[in-house]
Amino acid sequence: MISKPQIEVCLSPALLHKLDLTGKIVVIIDIFRATSTIVTALDNGAKAVVPTASVAECIHLGKTTPNSVTAGERNGMIASGLKYGNSPLTYSKSFIEGKTLLLTTTNGTRLLKMIENSAGILIGAFMNLSALSSYIQAQGKDLVLACAAWKDKVNLEDALFAGAVIHQLLPHFELYDDSSRMVHDAYQFSLQQGSVFEYLKKCTHYHRLAGYGLEEDLKYATQLNTHPVVPYYNGKEILLIGN
Amino acid sequence: MISKPQIEVCLSPALLHKLDLTGKIVVIIDIFRATSTIVTALDNGAKAVVPTASVAECIHLGKTTPNSVTAGERNGMIASGLKYGNSPLTYSKSFIEGKTLLLTTTNGTRLLKMIENSAGILIGAFMNLSALSSYIQAQGKDLVLACAAWKDKVNLEDALFAGAVIHQLLPHFELYDDSSRMVHDAYQFSLQQGSVFEYLKKCTHYHRLAGYGLEEDLKYATQLNTHPVVPYYNGKEILLIGN
Repeated sequence: MISKPQIEVCLSPALLHKLDLTGKIVVIIDIFRATSTIVTALDNGAKAVVPTASVAECIHLGKTTPNSVTAGERNGMIASGLKYGNSPLTYSKSFIEGKTLLLTTTNGTRLLKMIENSAGILIGAFMNLSALSSYIQAQGKDLVLACAAWKDKVNLEDALFAGAVIHQLLPHFELYDDSSRMVHDAYQFSLQQGSVFEYLKKCTHYHRLAGYGLEEDLKYATQLNTHPVVPYYNGKEILLIGN
Repeated sequence: MISKPQIEVCLSPALLHKLDLTGKIVVIIDIFRATSTIVTALDNGAKAVVPTASVAECIHLGKTTPNSVTAGERNGMIASGLKYGNSPLTYSKSFIEGKTLLLTTTNGTRLLKMIENSAGILIGAFMNLSALSSYIQAQGKDLVLACAAWKDKVNLEDALFAGAVIHQLLPHFELYDDSSRMVHDAYQFSLQQGSVFEYLKKCTHYHRLAGYGLEEDLKYATQLNTHPVVPYYNGKEILLIGN
């Protein structure tokens, strides 16, 4: 009997050290808003997205990378020295096509840089849920769904997306840890509550961002399968699989 | 308008540093099996439960504490030098009444010793769910539900119990963080799946313990309200409120 590949969920970067990532595919999840922005920009024709750990590195790369845009926020404002923010709505086809997006974010970029020894790093958001899940299923490897969280605090939108991926992958995969069971159960409960957007109105991060007047971003980032692409990180930049 | 007290959930000791416990009541949760054993022993007449950080400390205290029993396990076996294990079924009235239980456990004791500056530390288990919730409601203070987890990995039984407490306390309290929403939603989903015992059969820890032949412990520890007491930790020993 061939055993099924297994799924683990990491609810916060502060829990990542408990996992052995060797030989596993890792999905980075930062719904509000890094991974939603990356998926949007690449599907709209960005040449690549380069995640940078700091604002200073982003500014430096911006000076040396042709046809690039620098982007990133701190505390909900465009960071000093950068040109654009983290809103996925900024990265329309007419704006980003053919350009390299140099992006620094508080939680998502940090998590991306923490992943070591994996079999591959993918980028997940509600807008590429089904494309991502299909790709993962075809690989047949063990999977870690890694939530960027908010300054190490567990957040509902990232956890819920992990539950949504699990919902697509069962019964072809097995749930290895209790976190995966918990987020899947929370996701199944959310299905009974209406749309992802309505459900996530409950979450703290939503209220934080809505306080900055970003409700349109949140509506956009909770749409399902509007950008059916699979971005991967090659250790330097994020590109689309199949391109 | 008087605001409601708030609830936060800490899913793992590795996330505890993100919380400010000042002025808040903290509930320690280690369902399989430390807190279930503590609740049982105290309701069955134990004079006190003294949590010890190490096997060596437990042995030492056993030599100097009159009418005491030493207890603790490592890897599912009674630890070398101690007399009894962690099973709540061991601590019947005929055995434990009038005695002091000196207890060392892997996860629960460690978490207990990590709590600082709180307004009070209580002990929670399914067997004292309603008594505990009623006491907390009467206090009207902010609440942190702290899961002992398993070597820092999130577990379903502790998280589910946190969700059960939240279910009892709403609408008198507000959910402050996303972890509290997630465990409450997972709990509500579990209510649709039958008994707590049946639901927790899914969890990894259950399989680990059942592998040691401890299924009877797990059935016992998932019974609701069989020991309606409220244990608290005074910094040195665990006693019953009202005694």
